[in-house]
Amino acid sequence: MTLNDMGQRAKKAAKTLSVLGIEKERALLRAAGALRQRQGEILSANREDLEKGEAQGLTPALLDRLRLTEGRIEDMARAMEQIAKEPDPIGRVVRGETRPNGLIIQQVTVPLGVIGIIFEARPNVTADACALCIKAGSAVILRGGKEAFASNKAIARVLGEALTEAGLPQGALQLIEDPSRASAQALMGLTEYLDVLIPRGGAGLIKAVKEGARVPVIETGVGNCHVFVDESAGISMAAEIIFNAKTSRPSVCNAIETVLVHSAIAKKALPAIAARLGEKNVELRGCPRTCAILPQAKPAAEEDWETEYLDYILAVKVVDSLEEALSHIAKYSSGHSEAIVTESYGNAQRFLQEVDSAAVYVNASTRFTDGGEFGLGAEIGISTQKLHARGPMGLSQLTSTKYLVRGAGQVR
Amino acid sequence: MTLNDMGQRAKKAAKTLSVLGIEKERALLRAAGALRQRQGEILSANREDLEKGEAQGLTPALLDRLRLTEGRIEDMARAMEQIAKEPDPIGRVVRGETRPNGLIIQQVTVPLGVIGIIFEARPNVTADACALCIKAGSAVILRGGKEAFASNKAIARVLGEALTEAGLPQGALQLIEDPSRASAQALMGLTEYLDVLIPRGGAGLIKAVKEGARVPVIETGVGNCHVFVDESAGISMAAEIIFNAKTSRPSVCNAIETVLVHSAIAKKALPAIAARLGEKNVELRGCPRTCAILPQAKPAAEEDWETEYLDYILAVKVVDSLEEALSHIAKYSSGHSEAIVTESYGNAQRFLQEVDSAAVYVNASTRFTDGGEFGLGAEIGISTQKLHARGPMGLSQLTSTKYLVRGAGQVR
Repeated sequence: MTLNDMGQRAKKAAKTLSVLGIEKERALLRAAGALRQRQGEILSANREDLEKGEAQGLTPALLDRLRLTEGRIEDMARAMEQIAKEPDPIGRVVRGETRPNGLIIQQVTVPLGVIGIIFEARPNVTADACALCIKAGSAVILRGGKEAFASNKAIARVLGEALTEAGLPQGALQLIEDPSRASAQALMGLTEYLDVLIPRGGAGLIKAVKEGARVPVIETGVGNCHVFVDESAGISMAAEIIFNAKTSRPSVCNAIETVLVHSAIAKKALPAIAARLGEKNVELRGCPRTCAILPQAKPAAEEDWETEYLDYILAVKVVDSLEEALSHIAKYSSGHSEAIVTESYGNAQRFLQEVDSAAVYVNASTRFTDGGEFGLGAEIGISTQKLHARGPMGLSQLTSTKYLVRGAGQVR
Repeated sequence: MTLNDMGQRAKKAAKTLSVLGIEKERALLRAAGALRQRQGEILSANREDLEKGEAQGLTPALLDRLRLTEGRIEDMARAMEQIAKEPDPIGRVVRGETRPNGLIIQQVTVPLGVIGIIFEARPNVTADACALCIKAGSAVILRGGKEAFASNKAIARVLGEALTEAGLPQGALQLIEDPSRASAQALMGLTEYLDVLIPRGGAGLIKAVKEGARVPVIETGVGNCHVFVDESAGISMAAEIIFNAKTSRPSVCNAIETVLVHSAIAKKALPAIAARLGEKNVELRGCPRTCAILPQAKPAAEEDWETEYLDYILAVKVVDSLEEALSHIAKYSSGHSEAIVTESYGNAQRFLQEVDSAAVYVNASTRFTDGGEFGLGAEIGISTQKLHARGPMGLSQLTSTKYLVRGAGQVR
């Protein structure tokens, strides 16, 4: 089947999905059940990917992302069930009014239509994306990375068959069975059928999609996140927040990559922070003033301020003021999440107001930028752009609206 | 000044604008006053454009769009004052919650940043766009059409000087003083500085921007709108709605271009509709069955179903069912506004649910798709896309949000 045929099928399926209610929930519950029942099939496909990956010398971190286990399949199924049972995001009246001329105007939520998702190594994205898009009344076309090709194919087959058995149209969930660069490129140009394209992955993928796409894109997930330790910060709180934000899960986008420390507190704070990070052997790359205080820090290069390490590495810089911290963040941040640790009311307020990122924190870890933690439910990603949705994108952020206007012959 | 310099200046100005409150209102009121005080300057620039336009043989309709008068300048000033006095759309808490772990999370509205607008003949867009963008806390870069070049320059100069005198930064309002194709192209690629680009104009402009832009775009204003006269329609109501939707202002995007009539009512309805439209000499282009009923109708070609005439021309087609009407609309509509005239509850509900346009009407004229008529205040255009905003885009639709998270040391 050509990509164009897939687009056509998705568009047709989207039309059907747009008017379904409880049927979406039932189909997704059945699909979650199928994941459990047919886990042998999925695990054996996953072994194929893992063997290829090992032969090709993938890093242990990548292999771990790729690996499925009974437990991980159970997690995927539970996540699908949870999304299935969420309140239906479609058909909600967002705003409603009777105008002076008697027109009854309602703005209601409607599905986006056809959602394309390009993702990298994690095969669980197939199940998450399927559940979120279908619950939001949209058809989805997935294009996964080549490392997880067999796993994605198996999961998509299991889910797709269950959805069809439950009465959903065939085009509701489709996987492009070609993990080449060309297929990604073709999906980015599928203007006639795709309502939005969401890339999930590293900075390279996001950049390629942003530059190559001719369909609307929602950028997600690149997180060059910062913590600024202000002059008035409580040092132990700062150390705990930094330790958590760097080490609780370094491979995710809401982990921090750079710490900025006010020079007035640097001599006391840096050794405490470094000691805590030392428990997990975090490599420090510091500016000259940092290196003067912390002999274990390596000198940081310009590119360290720009890098999303996604690893046990942290860039550290001493700054002389809140202004300098704000400028550094404005220059290097990817607009995801930044935090200040401070006891100053004024500085907290300025930081909240002036930092132009999706989530801005005072005295808390950036690791909370997450649909579940924000009370939005499961998410398809964290939007780092300003249009449409910013921050965690749950079911509501996967919808559009239209205006319904009921009259009795009004003319203007 | 290069476009890059303008972008840099706009970004700097946006930073200042983002934290202003009442100062935005004061500056816009002053700018509106300046339009009145310096109207001579504006009118004389406009005469220059009009003379050039006449020499180049612009159509009377285009010349009329271009023409400024004391009355039209007064309208521009009043529109600016009205926008200036709207409640500030920035800093509103959209959602707020204290999470179980004590984190206080608020989603608040923030400015988009730098907004680019490419527009065609109407010089009043300069004033409208200036007021809406600045009130919404964003800097704006305008690129107007060559026909209104002198007028736009004069208006931007008058407004810009007033804004600066009122203390706003220089980059808050900038006009690209080069109406060439190359300058539009350059603006579409200003990825480093532009947060969104909004084209205002005809289908050709929108298409060029959609295809050429590497910055996020909001499509506006192409309106291939339909009225479907259902079997059960009241004929006089149908004729009134069609007459209003076609002739009250044919040059705007919410005017209709095609009428679909159910075959069971066509013989009675078409002559009544044609008689009413005849009062304004509307040219009819019909399908063969329409032409058989209405001798005055010319035969319609395939392209008539696709065309946004913006003129006293209407395409007419007889259909055998609601389904056929829905298919025709799905195929040809630009997703702006469509109406059904019916007394059938079931058909009204199906039409509202299945038509995938920004505004869907029962028994009312499509001419109501407008920020003011919908109770949203002044608008920058009607979005025909599904992402970010759909339908009339007022001040609220020109904002983004960010999450503010206040903690007391929480880690995850």
